[in-house]
Amino acid sequence: MYKVGIIGAAGYAGAELMRIVLRHPEFDLHVVTSNSDAGNAVASLYPAFQGVCDLCFSRHDDPAVLECDLVFMATPHTVAMKSAPSYLEKGITVVDLSADYRLRSQETYEAWYKVEHTSPELLATACFGQPETHPEEMARAAADFAAGKAVLVACAGCYPTATSLAAAPGVSFSQGVVVADAISGVTGAGRSATARTHYCSANENFEAYGVASHRHTPEIEQILGIEGRLVFTPHLAPASRGLLSTVTLQLTDEARGMSLADFRRRYSEAYADSPFVTLLPEGQQPKTSSVVGTNFAHVGIALNETAGCLIATCAIDNIVKGAAGQAVQCANLVLGLPANTALSTVANPS
Amino acid sequence: MYKVGIIGAAGYAGAELMRIVLRHPEFDLHVVTSNSDAGNAVASLYPAFQGVCDLCFSRHDDPAVLECDLVFMATPHTVAMKSAPSYLEKGITVVDLSADYRLRSQETYEAWYKVEHTSPELLATACFGQPETHPEEMARAAADFAAGKAVLVACAGCYPTATSLAAAPGVSFSQGVVVADAISGVTGAGRSATARTHYCSANENFEAYGVASHRHTPEIEQILGIEGRLVFTPHLAPASRGLLSTVTLQLTDEARGMSLADFRRRYSEAYADSPFVTLLPEGQQPKTSSVVGTNFAHVGIALNETAGCLIATCAIDNIVKGAAGQAVQCANLVLGLPANTALSTVANPS
Amino acid sequence: MYKVGIIGAAGYAGAELMRIVLRHPEFDLHVVTSNSDAGNAVASLYPAFQGVCDLCFSRHDDPAVLECDLVFMATPHTVAMKSAPSYLEKGITVVDLSADYRLRSQETYEAWYKVEHTSPELLATACFGQPETHPEEMARAAADFAAGKAVLVACAGCYPTATSLAAAPGVSFSQGVVVADAISGVTGAGRSATARTHYCSANENFEAYGVASHRHTPEIEQILGIEGRLVFTPHLAPASRGLLSTVTLQLTDEARGMSLADFRRRYSEAYADSPFVTLLPEGQQPKTSSVVGTNFAHVGIALNETAGCLIATCAIDNIVKGAAGQAVQCANLVLGLPANTALSTVANPS
Amino acid sequence: MYKVGIIGAAGYAGAELMRIVLRHPEFDLHVVTSNSDAGNAVASLYPAFQGVCDLCFSRHDDPAVLECDLVFMATPHTVAMKSAPSYLEKGITVVDLSADYRLRSQETYEAWYKVEHTSPELLATACFGQPETHPEEMARAAADFAAGKAVLVACAGCYPTATSLAAAPGVSFSQGVVVADAISGVTGAGRSATARTHYCSANENFEAYGVASHRHTPEIEQILGIEGRLVFTPHLAPASRGLLSTVTLQLTDEARGMSLADFRRRYSEAYADSPFVTLLPEGQQPKTSSVVGTNFAHVGIALNETAGCLIATCAIDNIVKGAAGQAVQCANLVLGLPANTALSTVANPS
Repeated sequence: MYKVGIIGAAGYAGAELMRIVLRHPEFDLHVVTSNSDAGNAVASLYPAFQGVCDLCFSRHDDPAVLECDLVFMATPHTVAMKSAPSYLEKGITVVDLSADYRLRSQETYEAWYKVEHTSPELLATACFGQPETHPEEMARAAADFAAGKAVLVACAGCYPTATSLAAAPGVSFSQGVVVADAISGVTGAGRSATARTHYCSANENFEAYGVASHRHTPEIEQILGIEGRLVFTPHLAPASRGLLSTVTLQLTDEARGMSLADFRRRYSEAYADSPFVTLLPEGQQPKTSSVVGTNFAHVGIALNETAGCLIATCAIDNIVKGAAGQAVQCANLVLGLPANTALSTVANPS
Repeated sequence: MYKVGIIGAAGYAGAELMRIVLRHPEFDLHVVTSNSDAGNAVASLYPAFQGVCDLCFSRHDDPAVLECDLVFMATPHTVAMKSAPSYLEKGITVVDLSADYRLRSQETYEAWYKVEHTSPELLATACFGQPETHPEEMARAAADFAAGKAVLVACAGCYPTATSLAAAPGVSFSQGVVVADAISGVTGAGRSATARTHYCSANENFEAYGVASHRHTPEIEQILGIEGRLVFTPHLAPASRGLLSTVTLQLTDEARGMSLADFRRRYSEAYADSPFVTLLPEGQQPKTSSVVGTNFAHVGIALNETAGCLIATCAIDNIVKGAAGQAVQCANLVLGLPANTALSTVANPS
Repeated sequence: MYKVGIIGAAGYAGAELMRIVLRHPEFDLHVVTSNSDAGNAVASLYPAFQGVCDLCFSRHDDPAVLECDLVFMATPHTVAMKSAPSYLEKGITVVDLSADYRLRSQETYEAWYKVEHTSPELLATACFGQPETHPEEMARAAADFAAGKAVLVACAGCYPTATSLAAAPGVSFSQGVVVADAISGVTGAGRSATARTHYCSANENFEAYGVASHRHTPEIEQILGIEGRLVFTPHLAPASRGLLSTVTLQLTDEARGMSLADFRRRYSEAYADSPFVTLLPEGQQPKTSSVVGTNFAHVGIALNETAGCLIATCAIDNIVKGAAGQAVQCANLVLGLPANTALSTVANPS
Repeated sequence: MYKVGIIGAAGYAGAELMRIVLRHPEFDLHVVTSNSDAGNAVASLYPAFQGVCDLCFSRHDDPAVLECDLVFMATPHTVAMKSAPSYLEKGITVVDLSADYRLRSQETYEAWYKVEHTSPELLATACFGQPETHPEEMARAAADFAAGKAVLVACAGCYPTATSLAAAPGVSFSQGVVVADAISGVTGAGRSATARTHYCSANENFEAYGVASHRHTPEIEQILGIEGRLVFTPHLAPASRGLLSTVTLQLTDEARGMSLADFRRRYSEAYADSPFVTLLPEGQQPKTSSVVGTNFAHVGIALNETAGCLIATCAIDNIVKGAAGQAVQCANLVLGLPANTALSTVANPS
């Protein structure tokens, strides 16, 4: 059993982490923190835990955190870059769900997040936590952990996860601008009560936001190796959870000769070993409802031969495969456990 | 491992049964049937099962059904009353989710369901499948099963489950009319595509239906022992799942002297041994979202001293605690397994 | 043309008032106030007004208010009781949507709202703004206005409107406890962004609230003349607008001999002259979606002969017939205009 | 007063047409037809019309249709191409909401709709009913009507309307592939009750559909003059109404020198005379909720300078500006009435 802490447990990703860790056979949920909700019972914030979990939130600096083997950090950016170094020093493995260690380039981070990075030395060694597109990094982190080292995992963001799972097997056949139009449920906007997250504002509405300016842009470009080529437009739609990314790849002259079957073969091969990514049967498109509450990603592809483009879509649960689930998947891999430990839930079939 | 069949697996309760049985450590999902979808893959109907379950639906008369130790019947009324007798004869335990064996009185059944009952001899011996209010019947069924007998369980309906969990510990303090106004999500109306279940008809709408005529009326009256006293009005609200029953009990003169604390004590005691029913802290009311996807029931009570009434509310997932989950809970109890085997899922905390 | 001001125009009822007043052929929207949004353009808060209305909110004490013939007050309780007296003194007719002048009894107001009433002398003379149940008060107010007097209208609340329209024609046949279980859309919780109004909290959820303690209780009792007999339980459901009240009336021994047709006749007669209240055909129940965005109220009734109860339901738009629309209806009547001026919109038929 | 008929009045566009025509000061709603619902009262299908409209549906061949001055056809494709010629012959002006006369090329129509066109001679003369992008055609039709001729208007589809309003002022600055990712509410899938339109299938879900194969593709290409360049991917989102199109235009080398202000000027000028299209303030993106229930279109633009792309979004109500409202707008223009007659409704501000 590993002693596990969750820093920033009161937000949606943190709460989902609690839910997964509580059912994890190798994890003992030791401490959950939230500076804003310190002192409150988990069940008072999330009645779903009533009768199931009697933990209370403590502050991030609760000494119990230092007794953990592993901490998940589900905090806003800038929190992890300040505390992760000391956790690592004390031998605590850190799985960070924030953006602090995702970008390899300090300059890019500072340009997009408008803050100085206080532990840039870790950027080069952090393991990028998107196992399907970066299996070799996960393997290296697992080897380090097995050798007794504390490891830092920088989990991919929600949009980057879905967008790269849709595009990765096809991107090498593309040229020029890559267009990713994605749609997220409202949990993506966080648990803060704002005019934007008010039920009556989000309900019966869809809209684009962060057009040409969303911070996940450089992260997607980095994963796919398409720096300067991405037009990423996120949209908000009236659902609590779910994220769909629709990516249009302009095929190179060479690739325009490939058939849909050719592309399907590439995708099948790319995800053959992944327990979580499923290429749907031909002609079928992913529905977010089929993956909500789960760590699965459904992928569909189609070919527009006239325009010479491949259209690839991927549906995930933004809070699970896009955050808490993927973090536990990464932790499982680092610890040498089966990737799907505590993550085999199937979506509610309605 | 028990060989398990699901008769009528294509509806919402059937699909949820598949989901629960697939994760059940003692159950082997042997056969799933649907006369209307026979031949189709489960995953083609419910993409959530893509890559997880490669079963196809067969017809109800698939001989594989007879190889089972246990069958769940999630069929419309009149199906179970025709086939359950032969399953039982062959030694197959039957957990029926339909109304066929719920009412003790053949006459009442025939009056409300407008059909002749073809196996009324089983009405007296069927175990009523609402474990919290009928623990002794569950115990008897478990003893019978342990003694080598095939057992018939008639699971309670969704509205009866929530309404009786809300009212049971208080009803003996009441007199006169009992008013139960309940609200259900749209899965309650079934998987058939009708004008009523069209998204644009159900969305942004709530309405009463079956006023003074809903078939769950005699079932609720039977459970609570309040024949002729119930006014039950179900409502439809725009959510996929969830069911809330609000029950107003008019207190007897004697009971009007009792305090809220007195009633809370009665409720706490009544559910002290139940792993699934939680009395919420004082002043808190159940939210369906806190139990959706789970087998939990949340209960809240309040007192209107001026009018001399106790108001009790209960929230459940209509498809889980109101159908598939309760059926598995009953099966677990009959088989002598822990009640919460495969049923410990906590609700999505958002 | 009457110069019209809206005090508290930034909330949902205020915004709906703007929308109705802008299309009213006899109203000139002169000033809209909001202390919290003073200085902001109406269209910046509600983009629906972009290109349609270029007014900005000013503060409540904007002198332009005093240039109005008529002001609507859509402010929280305690605001109107402080400023209405001075408006009336200056000859400005006041249509108040808040609770300040609804209750005849100062004592009851102070007990339920926990504040001292600062202009109790107006309680006796305020016209109660629920035209269908209080036509004689509206007629008196119209006569006063025609005679040159400024008039104070205290519009009924949303739950009281729907509940009394459902129950009024039947209540004289009832005895004992009256149970009203009502369901409201989330606009009923106001425009403030709170944990409760967060999309992800309200979505896919229904719950009771204010059980045995909601402030609309004494108002409903006053309208129906059933002091001390009401059990009122409001519920929140996931829709932006709409309110449904389901009222169970226990019939007197005498009334138990009446048929459904008898009751339908009473209801038809009661609403024969009302342009806004429709008794639906027998067997049909009101859907909130059929009245959302409109000033209409749909009513349905059914009889439970075994329990001896009449069940009456009424659907309205909580922001229109339950607030802004009814306020304009009252204003129309006071001013001697057709009741449905600017109020004949039919609901979106989907 | 013009006598108006609606052919195919039982679908969502037909019902919205009824709603608009009923409030139109120059229109007398003479006949409404539906072959499937012939004989039923409009109010029995759409209770919103209860007490407001007592018409019944008749069959399409009702002789009353021939007494009309103007008919709206809200029928599936292939109906109008068979009956419009005879209406025109009898001097009845036809405003067709279906696809039958939208495409100039018979060959393109037959290739995409897989049927033979039976009145292709009208393709050349039909007026294309998208007034903002084809004002000259509307003017010509109005002149013809003024000269006593019956006129045929082929209204643009919902996706083509939003997509072309987003892209039209910018498309001449673009080259190569144009990507349009659009999202529609569920009314877009029609009133038929299917597995896809079931509440529990559409709710809490978004998905792409018709990828690389949607029939609106050639229509959008025709409006914008970008034959062979379009990748159009429609999506379904859980809302009853609303349609958002997000268009990514790859700028020509020349146009890459233009600033956002330059583009905003072009857009402002393009829509300066349109009463229905509003370019939102800089930095603001259209919300479908701001236009639902109205004939307005909100447009927003942004520039991705790194990738050299203009991103333009447009929000409309798919049933109003995308169907019934635009049809009435076209009729108003043909008849020489103000464009916004009966179309000045502002969206529900919540």
